[in-house]
Amino acid sequence: MPTSVPLPSVRRLPVYLDLLRQRATAGEETIACTAIAGALGQDPTQVRKDLAITGVGGRPKIGYDLAELIAGIESFLGWNDCSQAFLAGAGNLGRALVGYAALRDAGLEIACAFDTDPIKQAETIGQIQVLPLRRLRTLARRMHIHVGIIAVPAAAAQNVAELMIDGGITAIWNFAPQRLEVPPEVVVEDADMLSGFAVLSHRLQHRLHPVAGR
Amino acid sequence: MPTSVPLPSVRRLPVYLDLLRQRATAGEETIACTAIAGALGQDPTQVRKDLAITGVGGRPKIGYDLAELIAGIESFLGWNDCSQAFLAGAGNLGRALVGYAALRDAGLEIACAFDTDPIKQAETIGQIQVLPLRRLRTLARRMHIHVGIIAVPAAAAQNVAELMIDGGITAIWNFAPQRLEVPPEVVVEDADMLSGFAVLSHRLQHRLHPVAGR
Repeated sequence: MPTSVPLPSVRRLPVYLDLLRQRATAGEETIACTAIAGALGQDPTQVRKDLAITGVGGRPKIGYDLAELIAGIESFLGWNDCSQAFLAGAGNLGRALVGYAALRDAGLEIACAFDTDPIKQAETIGQIQVLPLRRLRTLARRMHIHVGIIAVPAAAAQNVAELMIDGGITAIWNFAPQRLEVPPEVVVEDADMLSGFAVLSHRLQHRLHPVAGR
Repeated sequence: MPTSVPLPSVRRLPVYLDLLRQRATAGEETIACTAIAGALGQDPTQVRKDLAITGVGGRPKIGYDLAELIAGIESFLGWNDCSQAFLAGAGNLGRALVGYAALRDAGLEIACAFDTDPIKQAETIGQIQVLPLRRLRTLARRMHIHVGIIAVPAAAAQNVAELMIDGGITAIWNFAPQRLEVPPEVVVEDADMLSGFAVLSHRLQHRLHPVAGR
């Protein structure tokens, strides 16, 4: 069953979640599908289809129960549990990720950062320590870390991925512009920063406005 | 016609382009659809469908002409012309974007960065000057800049977007976790860093491996 879930719908879930949390914080208890669609400039049919993958449905005339829908999305994505992650690369991108508050809302806490640069190792990023890269494998095993974030230059990425996998990491979020070769049991998601720019360029070329199928 | 182009296909084009450029640099002249699919772990039917949106087709038994396909993707995305962009926000994320070499391959050159912080204004990022934010509007008009990148905190994003639009910017790549309100003629693409992490989380939850529909 999970294989039939369309990944573009999965990609849109964080955007819904963000809106739903805002509405819940504002004291609202239910939300209509058309209200979600209106706020995000999306097609209501698409919204209903996207949200259906979480197993939570709306009721006629009332809409979705906000608390139920938020819990449904969080549970579908596994964002209700906090995962600790190791970050490799304490450069500008790594620092930006540590400072990115929305990661914590997604249940991801960066526990430590690693870098080969001794100057960076002397620093902290916010509350996060920067440790020598050679310590990553042993610490990942000891702390039972399963998520790794790669924010190193392309040439170093494969080596870092192998250190992570040796340390027991099974899910890698890869920001390096380098395709990784990993064993089949390891899950890799490439951040592909350019895919968003491709959509922007295409819409600019063709002057398309609504973003029905992000 | 352009409205019928599926945006998930557009999103995947940069990944194809990167592979095709590597093969062309290695001296190859043609590439089969199945070879592209194999290298990227994708379904060949999907690859053929994605590439068809550029108007370039392959020939039986030979495959795609590499130079033709590269030119076709670049032209479809408008990446054959270099656009100059203004960057608002010279923090870690802004610096990471300036240092991101793939942007230039996508025909995007960051011409200037802007920040409200006087300490950052005294700095340069690589070759890029950091100027006071209040100069953005006038300079955008004078330099005929049409692309803006927002890498400021959420609370400042709407104000920055309005400055950009007043300056004649019509396409905004928004990295701030804040939905922007813009006139209908302005194109906004939200970077949605979390959408990739949503897919990773979902695959980790359900242990799905191939990424047929990124």
